[in-house]
Amino acid sequence: MKIQEATLLISSSETDSNLYYFTGFLAPDPFIFLQIGDEKVIIMSDLELDRAKLQAKVSTVLSYSHYEEVVKSSGTENPNMADVVREFLRERGINRVIVPSYFGIRNALLLQDMGYDIEVRQDPFIEQRVIKNNEEIQYIEQALRITESAVERAIDYIRMTEIRDGYLYTGNKKITSEDVKKLIDIYLLENSMIAQHTIVACGEDSSFPHNEGSGALRANAPVIIDVFPRSVKSRYYADITRTVVRGSASDEVKKMFNAVSVAQEVAFSMLKDKVNGRETHEAILMHFKNCGFESGEIDGRMQGFFHGTGHGVGLDVHEPPRISKKADILFTGQVVTVEPGLYYKGIGGVRLEDMVVVQPAGVINLTKSPKILEI
Amino acid sequence: MKIQEATLLISSSETDSNLYYFTGFLAPDPFIFLQIGDEKVIIMSDLELDRAKLQAKVSTVLSYSHYEEVVKSSGTENPNMADVVREFLRERGINRVIVPSYFGIRNALLLQDMGYDIEVRQDPFIEQRVIKNNEEIQYIEQALRITESAVERAIDYIRMTEIRDGYLYTGNKKITSEDVKKLIDIYLLENSMIAQHTIVACGEDSSFPHNEGSGALRANAPVIIDVFPRSVKSRYYADITRTVVRGSASDEVKKMFNAVSVAQEVAFSMLKDKVNGRETHEAILMHFKNCGFESGEIDGRMQGFFHGTGHGVGLDVHEPPRISKKADILFTGQVVTVEPGLYYKGIGGVRLEDMVVVQPAGVINLTKSPKILEI
Repeated sequence: MKIQEATLLISSSETDSNLYYFTGFLAPDPFIFLQIGDEKVIIMSDLELDRAKLQAKVSTVLSYSHYEEVVKSSGTENPNMADVVREFLRERGINRVIVPSYFGIRNALLLQDMGYDIEVRQDPFIEQRVIKNNEEIQYIEQALRITESAVERAIDYIRMTEIRDGYLYTGNKKITSEDVKKLIDIYLLENSMIAQHTIVACGEDSSFPHNEGSGALRANAPVIIDVFPRSVKSRYYADITRTVVRGSASDEVKKMFNAVSVAQEVAFSMLKDKVNGRETHEAILMHFKNCGFESGEIDGRMQGFFHGTGHGVGLDVHEPPRISKKADILFTGQVVTVEPGLYYKGIGGVRLEDMVVVQPAGVINLTKSPKILEI
Repeated sequence: MKIQEATLLISSSETDSNLYYFTGFLAPDPFIFLQIGDEKVIIMSDLELDRAKLQAKVSTVLSYSHYEEVVKSSGTENPNMADVVREFLRERGINRVIVPSYFGIRNALLLQDMGYDIEVRQDPFIEQRVIKNNEEIQYIEQALRITESAVERAIDYIRMTEIRDGYLYTGNKKITSEDVKKLIDIYLLENSMIAQHTIVACGEDSSFPHNEGSGALRANAPVIIDVFPRSVKSRYYADITRTVVRGSASDEVKKMFNAVSVAQEVAFSMLKDKVNGRETHEAILMHFKNCGFESGEIDGRMQGFFHGTGHGVGLDVHEPPRISKKADILFTGQVVTVEPGLYYKGIGGVRLEDMVVVQPAGVINLTKSPKILEI
């Protein structure tokens, strides 16, 4: 038997960026995508059929209801998505489908039971997505400019506060993490970007890298501001972190800030085409150790530097490659974050994050925001 | 051999509401969740370990790195998530795992190859989620009150415009779909709700149910306003649609609006505990037909009523049950939308959407916003 194969996705393009990358069409509910050679086919519900015909960047838009009727007429009372896929595959003489690692087990088993060969393609499912072309880099830079502007507004807002009794005031009101997050998120929305889980974490909160922060901000304590919104139009993300202290930073926090700044420089000097991200990550851990900053479980809690140095950014906010303890080779054209940090109980955290493009002999830093600790 | 089983999820709680429902813990990257009897276990990266210990509503928080080290020491150089799961299962003497339909095929195959029995549980994976308890209904009502207020502000904004040459002006500026969407989305964000894909679609745009709308709004033409944001705090959604005409609606649009209003009443009178949603959906189709509104492919495009009558709403904006052409039995405590609509080329669309709670003998309408066509 001749092997005829198709790539198959059954998911929602709202959450599956591969499906959005293939189709350029956003829909909230799962739909069927197939690629056969160069032909891209989607099978759409009545609800989305005509909008897909207008908006989707595919070769063929077919009606789900049509296939459902065909399946029903051959005796299946309640056809499911696998039945519809089978009907299409039969029509096209396809006997093998290639699916991503995250393809749902139920549909995979149903198709297997129908006699189809299922091949799981290794991650990343669309290799092309890992390397950004010029248009994608432009989208990311546009997103980053707006995000930087939001972060700078937040920092200006904190800078303009009055310090009283160790807290930050505008007039008679203590300002809070929530105030600053709202300022950032609303500015972003006004500029057509959607932020979720923006971090404005002060003092002890900032010693947990993903604590979003809450309550009154304090003077003389580190405030980590980490913002990673998506552009509504392009759907690309930006990702940036700054750490500031309103008032005076302790010597310890100053030392941490310097070590983290230099850690970024270590990464910038090492990252380039074909470098293993793990080597950079290990160099940063070594640098921190040399500066006297231990990492690992200390007093029953993770302290020091205990997350990855960076990750790819594109249509997903976390995507390959990783710069971490796992081996992962970087290539020219990849856009990655460089975000070392240090976190200690009773002191707080310091993190700085820029976005860079990997080049044959180094990196280009896309980020322009200044890094100033005390404001 | 004695069968010892565990429920298993490997996903991100940001996108997998089942995982969030189980753990109450939000994390952007995939993590491992297991339920063994009443014990809920999560296995977390160094990055999230201590935050999870503070925030996750589970029995046991374990370190991913710890299991990774154990796997490495037994000779596997680059352990993956399935290796870590296996190590944990071995420790607990578990030989069978229950996974959801959307569980990733790659991890399923790896676990199967390791000798584990994989059982795919039928949807809905967490049956309890389909029926809302009082706390959940409160969350949904809180979300709905804010959403209604956003929609009412949008309608007031449109009402206050001046009509000139068929367009809507504030001062010298034509107002657009984008203006109204921004007004809605920013109001929601100020009230800690995140909206995506808000629809403000006028005229021809409104004849495609999921067209988000763009450009200048026109007088005397239907404007569909459909808003479905999520509460940042509770993570529950609200979902509401209103249709308005600034100026005078045509007789055709008035007739459509009346038919759609009555269609909602048809649903309200039929829906109750143990009713099949399909019967309600079919009654609405019949009602539209009796009013002279044909549905289906007309002139090469889907027209009339060609989407479902409603869907469950909770931690996901679209969740079971469906009120549609598919058989689906409704039960007391379910929160569903009732959103019939009519869409015609050259005329536009009319849709009205309320949220109701199914009761033993009927429904309670949670929605309070008025339905007024001409403004």
